[in-house]
Amino acid sequence: MKRILTGDRTTGKLHLGHYVGSLQNRVKLQDEYDTFIILADIQALTTHFEQPELINKGIYDVAIDNLSVGLDPNKVTIFLQSKISAIAELTVFYSMLVSVNSLRHNPTIKTEAKQYGYDDLSYGFLGYPVSQTADITFCNADLVPVGEDQIPHIELGRKIVRRFNDLYGNGRVIIKEPQALISETPRLIGMDGNSKMGKSLGNAIYLSDTVEEVNKKVKSAVTDKNRISVKDKGNPEICTISKYHKAFNHEEYNNICEMCKNASIGCVACKNDLSKKINQLLEPFRERRAYYEENIKEVRDIILTGSQKANMIGNETVDVIKKAMSIHI
Amino acid sequence: MKRILTGDRTTGKLHLGHYVGSLQNRVKLQDEYDTFIILADIQALTTHFEQPELINKGIYDVAIDNLSVGLDPNKVTIFLQSKISAIAELTVFYSMLVSVNSLRHNPTIKTEAKQYGYDDLSYGFLGYPVSQTADITFCNADLVPVGEDQIPHIELGRKIVRRFNDLYGNGRVIIKEPQALISETPRLIGMDGNSKMGKSLGNAIYLSDTVEEVNKKVKSAVTDKNRISVKDKGNPEICTISKYHKAFNHEEYNNICEMCKNASIGCVACKNDLSKKINQLLEPFRERRAYYEENIKEVRDIILTGSQKANMIGNETVDVIKKAMSIHI
Repeated sequence: MKRILTGDRTTGKLHLGHYVGSLQNRVKLQDEYDTFIILADIQALTTHFEQPELINKGIYDVAIDNLSVGLDPNKVTIFLQSKISAIAELTVFYSMLVSVNSLRHNPTIKTEAKQYGYDDLSYGFLGYPVSQTADITFCNADLVPVGEDQIPHIELGRKIVRRFNDLYGNGRVIIKEPQALISETPRLIGMDGNSKMGKSLGNAIYLSDTVEEVNKKVKSAVTDKNRISVKDKGNPEICTISKYHKAFNHEEYNNICEMCKNASIGCVACKNDLSKKINQLLEPFRERRAYYEENIKEVRDIILTGSQKANMIGNETVDVIKKAMSIHI
Repeated sequence: MKRILTGDRTTGKLHLGHYVGSLQNRVKLQDEYDTFIILADIQALTTHFEQPELINKGIYDVAIDNLSVGLDPNKVTIFLQSKISAIAELTVFYSMLVSVNSLRHNPTIKTEAKQYGYDDLSYGFLGYPVSQTADITFCNADLVPVGEDQIPHIELGRKIVRRFNDLYGNGRVIIKEPQALISETPRLIGMDGNSKMGKSLGNAIYLSDTVEEVNKKVKSAVTDKNRISVKDKGNPEICTISKYHKAFNHEEYNNICEMCKNASIGCVACKNDLSKKINQLLEPFRERRAYYEENIKEVRDIILTGSQKANMIGNETVDVIKKAMSIHI
């Protein structure tokens, strides 16, 4: 069974954008791959080091979100990044093998720095791809499911791994070169219709939202502004709701677009249809969530057990790496 | 007893410059302070990652050099940096609290980068002061004996510690702010008279040099080039040997300078005097070295025992720090 490394920064609860872009896929992959899910609290620090309580709450939020969508703790290994000292150790080793300039010119770093409004990056933020390479390789993962925007990070990681193997491998592969498993799901736009759905953008439907919250958010979503009366013909191309039908009500999508164009369905009814679909999707998640929230100690045990396993694997990797580097006595 | 953190990068054997600038002082301090001596193999990687065998050999070289000058393994804790995962963990935490620009503008980093001819720094090299702060604070050291050139590093370290305490301390001091203990010993120039004595400059008398090697190196040292015959009056100001008399033959220094100026001592005799003095100094070191080289397993045990102790302390520090940061479950 090949190994997958995936996960989330623990900066808050996850939303439908995460589900469509990643979690949905994780649930499928858990039967085919040995799946490791990182609760990335250290990487959360790169942007949220001034809000440690948020990161702490995020650990449980993210863990329960992952469990609620159907990830099975008996199949996958859910672990807390800060509990794996091997990741910090690998980060330090790899930091010798990558130049400051190559990090500064990394397009993902540049975009994200701009997004957060940083003009004076922290050393830790700049090292994000180094730390991510440590996350992936501490358990010798074969595959990393990522969106297209993460490809430059993975490429830099592969470069670090190749350099390591070239320098210290004596012709052998010490660390597996990870492959990106590109997710083809397009990004989900926010309820405001303007940008992608984002934790920090206030335009998200959360996996933990109630039926009422979903209904309210869908109701307030932006549709075709030129469609004033029900009798006006609509243009689904510029309607947020239509994009959600495509993602969450795929079978009826074409039909609904036709009805919108013919003015045979109104926005209210169309939104109600969508809310129902989203709530149908979320219903089993809510049941599992309710269970884990009532049994929070079980969530803690899942994370601790996963971290223990990850730690053992990580320490073995560090031993192998140190031996290859002659850093041992 | 206050705690001191000091040590050496494991890039090769130590020389008289290290002795005068640091080791001599360590021997004195070991009775007054709880002394931790780091064998900095990870920091050796910042410049020597392409020569891992050299770093490995350097671990034993540096450990034996420290023991040979009279550091007592029953008093001091000698440990291997790479064995202390807490140092890597603290490095990662601190990397959030320091900006890339403040590292780029650090004068010591700039000077050292120039010295090594780097125009494209590695991420690890740039982070040297961050890693050094982790070295100092993992054991909550009170004092760090340093030369003047290291002051900007220590200042940056103190800034990181203050920032940490401000952010996460809730008014309490979580990490001790270390103080620099400035060594007033001037740098020892090399045998070639041109620059400081340096491992990489080929102008050093090593603590492990034999009587014959010392004699030969002193014989070939540069003196006053204008003094061609014994009858010529010499100028000690521009003579390498006179600087060594000052450092290693202090009682006779003034007298020798006078004799040089009067042409009442020749360079050959003056050099012989110096060789004798240096060999006298090195003699007890050679005896201890011979013992440890014959009992290399004992050296290994000293390092392993020290590392075990340092590890325990480091793990406690990481626990305290994580709790302060709410990075725990």
